[in-house]
Amino acid sequence: MTPENLIKQIAFIKEIDKIKYIQRKTKLFNSDRPENDAEHSWHLAVMALVLAEHSNEKIDVLKVVKMVLIHDIVEIDAGDTFIYDTQKNHSNTDEERLAAQRIFGLLPKEQAQEFIAVWEEFEAGITPESKFARTMDRLEPLLQNTSNMGGTWSEFGVSYEKVHAKKSIMKEGSTTIWDFAEDLINDSVEKGILKKG
Amino acid sequence: MTPENLIKQIAFIKEIDKIKYIQRKTKLFNSDRPENDAEHSWHLAVMALVLAEHSNEKIDVLKVVKMVLIHDIVEIDAGDTFIYDTQKNHSNTDEERLAAQRIFGLLPKEQAQEFIAVWEEFEAGITPESKFARTMDRLEPLLQNTSNMGGTWSEFGVSYEKVHAKKSIMKEGSTTIWDFAEDLINDSVEKGILKKG
Repeated sequence: MTPENLIKQIAFIKEIDKIKYIQRKTKLFNSDRPENDAEHSWHLAVMALVLAEHSNEKIDVLKVVKMVLIHDIVEIDAGDTFIYDTQKNHSNTDEERLAAQRIFGLLPKEQAQEFIAVWEEFEAGITPESKFARTMDRLEPLLQNTSNMGGTWSEFGVSYEKVHAKKSIMKEGSTTIWDFAEDLINDSVEKGILKKG
Repeated sequence: MTPENLIKQIAFIKEIDKIKYIQRKTKLFNSDRPENDAEHSWHLAVMALVLAEHSNEKIDVLKVVKMVLIHDIVEIDAGDTFIYDTQKNHSNTDEERLAAQRIFGLLPKEQAQEFIAVWEEFEAGITPESKFARTMDRLEPLLQNTSNMGGTWSEFGVSYEKVHAKKSIMKEGSTTIWDFAEDLINDSVEKGILKKG
C-alpha cells in the first residue's frame, strides 16, 4: 500500500511539470530563446548556493533555495507577469494566492502549509532569506539583458530610471552584489544598451 | 572594486546557462517535448524537498538539493548519456571529470573544490545523501515514461528487465519510494507499455 502522503506528493510533482511551459520575457544568455520558469528557478537556486557568502545578513541557505525553487509555481495558474508591466502588479495578487492554495494544496496538509508560508515569506520580502532570494531574482535577468545588448530593456523601451529603481532593492539582500549590479547598469548606459528616460 | 570571488562566481553563473540547451531523451509529462537538463535538475530539487521524509536514512536535505542541482553541469562539455545506452557508460567517465574540473574550476578555489566533491559524492552513490539524490534521478523519468505511454522505453525498445534492474537502486535511497516505483513498473507491463524481454 502506497502511503497517502506519497500519493499526494506524486500528484504535486506531476502538476508542477507545467512550469516548464511558462515563458518569461527575458531571453537566455547571448540568445533570443525565451527562458521558462523551471530554467529560471534552477538558475536562481544555483546562484543562491554560489553567492550566499555575499548576503548582508546570516541566512539559512536551504530556506533561500526552497524559496527560489518554488517562487514561480503559482504562475502555472496566474501566468508570468513582466516586472516592468504597467497594467498588472506582480506582488501578491489574489490570483496568485488562489494558485498557491490550489497547487501547494495538492501536498499533504502540513507540507502544503509549509510551502505556502515559504512562498508568502518570499513575496513579503521582509526576512533576510527573502531579501537574498529577491536579490537573486533581480540579478539573473540583469546578467541576461546585459549579455543580450539590452534584451527586454530595448525590446520594451524600459528606461534607466525604471531599471535602477526596480533593481535597487537588491541592496537589501547584498550590498556587495548591488554595487556590482549598479556598475553593470551604469556601464549599460555608457554602452547605449540602456537609455535614460 | 568588485571582489575577486564575485567576479569568478559571475563567470560560473554565465557559463552554466548552457545546460538549458542540453536535451535529454525523456519527454515532459504527457508530452513529446524533450526535457532539458536545467528543467530536469529543477524538478529533482523540488522532489527532494517534497519527498525527503521517505529517505531510509537521516539526510542533510541541503546537500541532496545541491547534488541534484549541479549533477548534470558536467554535461555542458560531456553531453547527455542515455541511461540505457549500451555503447557508453554514464558513470565517471574521464570526459565528465575533465568537465567538472573546467566548469566548477571557474569558481573561487575553495568553492570549486567543494562543488567537485559534492558532484563526486553523487556519482559514487555511497552516502545517504547521494543514494537519495539518485533515487530522485531515477524516479522522475519513470513518472514521465508512464505518463507518456512508455515514452523512451517504447521509443528505444527497452525491456522490463533492464528498466527493473536500473530502477532497483532506488531502494537504497528509499524503500517506500521503490515499492511505489516497482508497482508502477509492474502496472506498465500489464498495460502493455513496457515489454518483457
